[in-house]
Amino acid sequence: MGGTNRIGCEALRAKVRTAEEAASLIKSGSTVGMSGFTGSGYPKAVPLALAARIEAEHAKGRPFQVRVWTGASTGPELDGALAKAGGIEFRLPYNSDPIAREMINRGEMEYFDMHLSQVAPMAWQGFLGPLDTAVVEISGIRTDGSLIPSSSVGNNKTWLDRASQVILEVNSWQNEALEGMHDIYYGTALPPNRIPIPLIRPDDRIGEPAFRCDPNKIAAIVETDAPDRNLPFKAPDDHARAIAGHLLEFFRHEVAKGRLPRSLLPIQSGVGNIANAVLIGLLDAPFDTMTAYTEVIQDGMLDLLAAGKLRMASATALSLSPEAAATLNAEMPLFRDKMILRPQEISNHPELIRRLGCIAMNGMIEADIYGNVNSTHIMGSRIQNGIGGSGDFARNAYVSIFMAPSTAKNDAISAIVPQASHVDHITQDVQVLVTEQGLADLRGLSPKQRAETIVENCAHPDYRPMLHDYFHRAREHSYGQQSPSILTEALSWHQRFIDTGSMRA
Amino acid sequence: MGGTNRIGCEALRAKVRTAEEAASLIKSGSTVGMSGFTGSGYPKAVPLALAARIEAEHAKGRPFQVRVWTGASTGPELDGALAKAGGIEFRLPYNSDPIAREMINRGEMEYFDMHLSQVAPMAWQGFLGPLDTAVVEISGIRTDGSLIPSSSVGNNKTWLDRASQVILEVNSWQNEALEGMHDIYYGTALPPNRIPIPLIRPDDRIGEPAFRCDPNKIAAIVETDAPDRNLPFKAPDDHARAIAGHLLEFFRHEVAKGRLPRSLLPIQSGVGNIANAVLIGLLDAPFDTMTAYTEVIQDGMLDLLAAGKLRMASATALSLSPEAAATLNAEMPLFRDKMILRPQEISNHPELIRRLGCIAMNGMIEADIYGNVNSTHIMGSRIQNGIGGSGDFARNAYVSIFMAPSTAKNDAISAIVPQASHVDHITQDVQVLVTEQGLADLRGLSPKQRAETIVENCAHPDYRPMLHDYFHRAREHSYGQQSPSILTEALSWHQRFIDTGSMRA
Repeated sequence: MGGTNRIGCEALRAKVRTAEEAASLIKSGSTVGMSGFTGSGYPKAVPLALAARIEAEHAKGRPFQVRVWTGASTGPELDGALAKAGGIEFRLPYNSDPIAREMINRGEMEYFDMHLSQVAPMAWQGFLGPLDTAVVEISGIRTDGSLIPSSSVGNNKTWLDRASQVILEVNSWQNEALEGMHDIYYGTALPPNRIPIPLIRPDDRIGEPAFRCDPNKIAAIVETDAPDRNLPFKAPDDHARAIAGHLLEFFRHEVAKGRLPRSLLPIQSGVGNIANAVLIGLLDAPFDTMTAYTEVIQDGMLDLLAAGKLRMASATALSLSPEAAATLNAEMPLFRDKMILRPQEISNHPELIRRLGCIAMNGMIEADIYGNVNSTHIMGSRIQNGIGGSGDFARNAYVSIFMAPSTAKNDAISAIVPQASHVDHITQDVQVLVTEQGLADLRGLSPKQRAETIVENCAHPDYRPMLHDYFHRAREHSYGQQSPSILTEALSWHQRFIDTGSMRA
Repeated sequence: MGGTNRIGCEALRAKVRTAEEAASLIKSGSTVGMSGFTGSGYPKAVPLALAARIEAEHAKGRPFQVRVWTGASTGPELDGALAKAGGIEFRLPYNSDPIAREMINRGEMEYFDMHLSQVAPMAWQGFLGPLDTAVVEISGIRTDGSLIPSSSVGNNKTWLDRASQVILEVNSWQNEALEGMHDIYYGTALPPNRIPIPLIRPDDRIGEPAFRCDPNKIAAIVETDAPDRNLPFKAPDDHARAIAGHLLEFFRHEVAKGRLPRSLLPIQSGVGNIANAVLIGLLDAPFDTMTAYTEVIQDGMLDLLAAGKLRMASATALSLSPEAAATLNAEMPLFRDKMILRPQEISNHPELIRRLGCIAMNGMIEADIYGNVNSTHIMGSRIQNGIGGSGDFARNAYVSIFMAPSTAKNDAISAIVPQASHVDHITQDVQVLVTEQGLADLRGLSPKQRAETIVENCAHPDYRPMLHDYFHRAREHSYGQQSPSILTEALSWHQRFIDTGSMRA
């Protein structure tokens, strides 16, 4: 058990405890700030022990719930276990755990879905209430007591600073060579004391490699040796490859027009099948010395780094398949200097995204004919995951792109609808829409021009006539003609799906 | 006629032309970038002459239309006259002219409603197409050929830089003492060459007092002596005063809690009745040495400056009543050093709004029970004005506040509805809602918690039971329970208004 070797600070070794001992320090009704972003760097032992304790309390008829703040999504040992135990009263800022999702959608858990850049400043602002306990995974403690981050940074700096007590998990599964990859910026402040963030290139280092932490606040250190929730890589399907093809063609066109440099601009890419297809496509595309300024480094980015197409990638977390994680661990010297992991208030900061001119590529649930995008709510009411960082990037990007297959559930759902059942990204923040059918370049178009383009280029042929019909009738009968609508039909496709299992007429 | 005295550059005096001669330089099908923001600083002679020319061409059966870009709204001599002539093919980024509004809502004019901070960078980005002609009002020309801005700055710097030819209107109605009030920042660029904007206080001057302009591009200079479209001041009514009262109580509460400094944070305020009521209320409130970082300086701000409550105000335009304009002209020495007018890409820049931590106060048409705000589309389809700068401020503010009376049209319309018929500001960007009924502090609340708070605190008593009923039935029957909805009823209030003239059941 090499755990204790990771604790370089003599004085802190005395604070090693079991996960159960650490979990016993967390009180019912308190707020806990946990590490974790996209399934990496979340604590893996204390939340499980806390869930067991909550179940035991509940078995005795005693209430026990906590408010849980994180970076973004975590893993089954955290959100899954605590949700299953009925232990989460309130959750922010993002969730992708299936058990927690079900509880939220049954109305059994309050969920505050936030812009990821705003979590840290809003925690400082004070209206979210005090943070009682931080539970943060790290990969080691240096001799001076500073903390080496693990595979995600997220809001850890803020949790460590704000919490009354700190519980650390030192995870010896995390590669020791992570040390030095992180850049923790300590220059943020509340207004009126904010100053420009001195980052002008994705590869600028503006901070420190480790977290500062008041040793007196450290209540327990738990040693673990457990892998991140690394999901298997899923090869892109035909639709994802078609979407990637349209997008790469768009990039080539913009380079040819002189509107994008040949190295493009820093790319931001969501996770998943389509995002990976785009990244795989970039392997063979005529763009070199690219950079990424994004939330997560996924498999496709690792491949681009290995191939030398991507010069470097800045993010707040790794989000890798087990195979890619093994590759990274084996070839850390190759990758280490090409990656920077930052706090999410920096990876997602509007100031930096606009300055760098990111190319934002995000998935969506649906878009309407005017280009309003729903990223979060299925049929307008049921949360899928959350807005995450998509709003931080979409509004400030140089080009803001949203992508999805044109249909879902065996064509029973159209991703292009008369009116979005919920809006996360307004038309002004959606410049390009892509489905496997094609790409709609909406820049500089009025709503009606957008509608023609979206229906023609992006809608599935099965739904295109229905959309044309709706739009043309709306042009005749709408109350106003800026964004023509028929209010009695605008959400009828979603109701039809609920009633019949299909949006088809 | 003191016009020529305003042209300090000898070489340029030879370019003085009549408005008709200048208008003849503008070609059908071309794009014209005009000055003007909130009815101030727009050209007053050339657009009228252009409208006359267009009408003459139309009378001969010849097509003649132009694409019109501005800062924001202008005056009847620009938007009104050109719209009436049927001369505008495409309009961006904002309109409040009633004639143009009617044409847009009849589907006779394409209108691209944009975030005001993005107009200049998007014009540089190139996808909006070339800018053929700039028509810019100035208050004078210096001996070195640089141009003294008039009562608004807007996008003038960008129009002068981007246009192939430049037509200037030198308006001697504008106070000569405006010289030195402006701060034109020349440090913006396209990525990857963007750098931090070196502004850390609202009163920082980071640029030059005048516009640069290549004299070879100046095709004509027209002398004018015409007032801005200054609308009469309307004293706040009871509802506006009630809204202001709730808001001032909130500020006092936040100061008491230590979440706002006693000088508050830089305020951003929209225009109109409610905004002025808030500013009037601040005259007697216990906040001193305040600052404003906003789009426009309206009557209420002038009063706060005169009273010494507001230390200084930064904006992109003046928007005054005739009386306030007269006061300003008479007492320019008192006000001059307390005001800075900047390009709108700077007054509305997300980087600066987030850094300064602005308190954003904007009007709305309606909000839904989850706090999504509609600022632009009446009954979902009919444009009122446009999103303007509200999105720039709301997403990046320290506190984002939206305000409206709880009803409109003699209570036939509720400003709180089950679902917003159009969304401009998503729930994440709406932290406080205020009506004359009360204030809803939505910070840190989940959607269902927001719904309870909004209905209870903000809805009109006539509509509160209907909203409670909707929400409680949605909690029983909704597809998902994150943001419960009944899709068949969500937009039914708007349809009922269209059908019956009232949202009442």
